[in-house]
Amino acid sequence: MRKLYIIGIGSGNPEHITVQAIKALNDVDVFFVLNKGSSKSDLIRLRKEICERYIDDPSYRTIEVVDPQRDPSIASYSLRVQAWHQERAVIYEDLIGRELKDDECGAFLVWGDPSLYDSTLRVIDHIIARGIVHFDHEVIPGITSIQALAARHKITLNGIGESICITTGRQLTPGLVASSENVVVMLDGKCSFREVLDQDVEIYWGAYVGSDKEILLSGRLTEKLETIEVARSAAREKNGWVMDTYLLRNPSARRS
Amino acid sequence: MRKLYIIGIGSGNPEHITVQAIKALNDVDVFFVLNKGSSKSDLIRLRKEICERYIDDPSYRTIEVVDPQRDPSIASYSLRVQAWHQERAVIYEDLIGRELKDDECGAFLVWGDPSLYDSTLRVIDHIIARGIVHFDHEVIPGITSIQALAARHKITLNGIGESICITTGRQLTPGLVASSENVVVMLDGKCSFREVLDQDVEIYWGAYVGSDKEILLSGRLTEKLETIEVARSAAREKNGWVMDTYLLRNPSARRS
Ligand SMILES: C[S@@+](CC[C@H](N)C(=O)[O-])C[C@H]1O[C@@H](n2cnc3c(N)ncnc32)[C@H](O)[C@@H]1O
Ligand SMILES: C[S@@+](CC[C@H](N)C(=O)[O-])C[C@H]1O[C@@H](n2cnc3c(N)ncnc32)[C@H](O)[C@@H]1O
Repeated sequence: MRKLYIIGIGSGNPEHITVQAIKALNDVDVFFVLNKGSSKSDLIRLRKEICERYIDDPSYRTIEVVDPQRDPSIASYSLRVQAWHQERAVIYEDLIGRELKDDECGAFLVWGDPSLYDSTLRVIDHIIARGIVHFDHEVIPGITSIQALAARHKITLNGIGESICITTGRQLTPGLVASSENVVVMLDGKCSFREVLDQDVEIYWGAYVGSDKEILLSGRLTEKLETIEVARSAAREKNGWVMDTYLLRNPSARRS
Repeated sequence: MRKLYIIGIGSGNPEHITVQAIKALNDVDVFFVLNKGSSKSDLIRLRKEICERYIDDPSYRTIEVVDPQRDPSIASYSLRVQAWHQERAVIYEDLIGRELKDDECGAFLVWGDPSLYDSTLRVIDHIIARGIVHFDHEVIPGITSIQALAARHKITLNGIGESICITTGRQLTPGLVASSENVVVMLDGKCSFREVLDQDVEIYWGAYVGSDKEILLSGRLTEKLETIEVARSAAREKNGWVMDTYLLRNPSARRS
């Protein structure tokens, strides 16, 4: 039976890889690598670096997959993304069928952890539901950018007994922050924290966390807001891409 | 300058340790190990196993700290825990001062990740605020029980663009589940999922995840509720302790 690993590789620091992931990497015959276009080629480089550093026998093959475009004519975000995952499923299914022999082992390397804002597992589920190619699969967790951020700021995500909300820039609202002690924001292309005007809120922000481009900033949100925006756009200008995550802490949402 | 590492060691699977954590382990002169009483001695055993397996030179020292009791006369949960952290800070401060030479390196090994429902960083902050002993400290992330759970169930925590709420058994309410697509529950001593009666909700439950005692159960909550309760109390009876985490998915909370 073919085997597929879905391996979390951490989010920028090659030393965040686990022993379990290294063992799996050394089992792999074929790596399927998604090419998301030149702007994110740094990400592909990190994946290659991890393979070169941790795999003993370099006889594995690497297959680059060009990511399909999302169809802009589909108005609903969720339906547009679903259609795109279906397209990816067809592409992967074809590659798995053609490139992976019956007793071979393939892998997808996933940025951070496969359970967090990543579509690989959903695409795999689509392929299984289609029933055309067959394989076993195993998921290997990786350090998320949230944990990397917290570790670098030396903070916990929650106060004693508190909840944590993880969300996207798209869903961040002042109301959410008013009612949540701890909000972690990912996938924010436009500094959505600007809309939160609460004087008590603290921000712990990081870009390229764990990598040698890392930038960390923290403090009272209303005071740091501009510094962060400026740092973010300068970095984006310089590197051609930016990935940032932040925690918003609202002590006044705290129950006694 | 003294150095202190706060090292996330994963939550039960010794192979969830990262390369960064292994490097740090090999730097350590003194491990401070919290003894929480005999019922959780399995946890201490896992810590020892990790040290024996991954540290090349076994000349490190291990110091067991007996955890102070929480003061039951303090009525507020949060104040009671704060008082207990202050007590811990005094104990650790004293140990660091006595046991760690000026150029030595100490470490606390933290279950899972130090940023998630763990008090070590808060205690360290208390010690720093007291200003009596001085040290540098570095935090090393680890795989959380949430990620281990998701990996073993081969699921993502969020649907496309959705938020994730991480909370405790104490704070889980039917209202929270009604309004959240994805709720992860930790620190639940009494199967709080019983109170959620929504027919649509799915549960992904796991106990001792990643270890050789692992139990995984999933399905429609109303159908699996009893099976999970029975499995949980049987396991607790047999092993003397149980640690479980679960994801509640509520498709009817989904916006279009
Ligand atoms: C598609 S999600 C993938 C998340 C990933 N699966 C994880 O576990 O972190 C991409 C988002 O993750 C965050 N991110 C990933 N790597 C990061 C890094 N090194 N520094 C800061 N944020 C990062 C950013 O919010 C980015 O928009
Ligand atoms: C004090 S919290 C520590 C969490 C830890 N820092 C982490 O990152 O997972 C303890 C709670 O974590 C969860 N937990 C820890 N290890 C677990 C395991 N192996 N399986 C299931 N749940 C676990 C349980 O909900 C338990 O009540």
